[in-house]
Amino acid sequence: MRKIEHIGIAVKNLEEANKTYASLFGAEAYKQEGVESEGVITSFFQVGPNKIELLEGTNPDSPISKFIAKRGEGIHHIAFDVEDIEAEIERLKGEGFILLNEQPKFGADNKLVAFLHPKSSHGVLVELCQERQD
Amino acid sequence: MRKIEHIGIAVKNLEEANKTYASLFGAEAYKQEGVESEGVITSFFQVGPNKIELLEGTNPDSPISKFIAKRGEGIHHIAFDVEDIEAEIERLKGEGFILLNEQPKFGADNKLVAFLHPKSSHGVLVELCQERQD
Repeated sequence: MRKIEHIGIAVKNLEEANKTYASLFGAEAYKQEGVESEGVITSFFQVGPNKIELLEGTNPDSPISKFIAKRGEGIHHIAFDVEDIEAEIERLKGEGFILLNEQPKFGADNKLVAFLHPKSSHGVLVELCQERQD
Repeated sequence: MRKIEHIGIAVKNLEEANKTYASLFGAEAYKQEGVESEGVITSFFQVGPNKIELLEGTNPDSPISKFIAKRGEGIHHIAFDVEDIEAEIERLKGEGFILLNEQPKFGADNKLVAFLHPKSSHGVLVELCQERQD
């Protein structure tokens, strides 16, 4: 794992949260993007080598909406940048981690992604992400 | 803010969590340190330009013990590296953020730190940290 690619933060209202985080960083979000398959709209802020992703659920069944219903707004996941996501998935399975998806899937920001189950990482939802080459 | 300095993760048992995260990163924690004033013991992992800090409370009144009692293990805070913590505190107060401490205090890893109240940042406990010069 090469760095923290981004931190995902679940918010109720993306427009309001964009204003708050623009004040925090002194810079606006550099892009906004929907991921229909996940039922979310997202925005991204750059902080040096890292990003902050804000996520709002677009329907009550979205994982983000469910997270907020259960725990309120807050940090949802940590994503690590990996060079070869398939090799990392194999390595981590061998280490005993539970994958939520064993096949990489398309995520926001032109990435291939896979998630580790929080119960195998002390309550932390860990995302692996690899930049897509195409 | 120049980068994510570290992510703080609240764990019940630092020794066990150290093993899990060493498997995750393929590398051991590079140091372990207590912060008596906060009632925590911590360990640090390096991930490229960023760090992961694991925190275990050393008594039931520690903020970490209380967090785990309420929400279970998981991500506790995001810390951003700042060049001038006093200037950032003043700027963020001006932007309407609520500081948990308006005077920087000593934190782990040779840092001056200050925290923003989660209610002014959509449920996220934000730490500012500046490397100490002395």
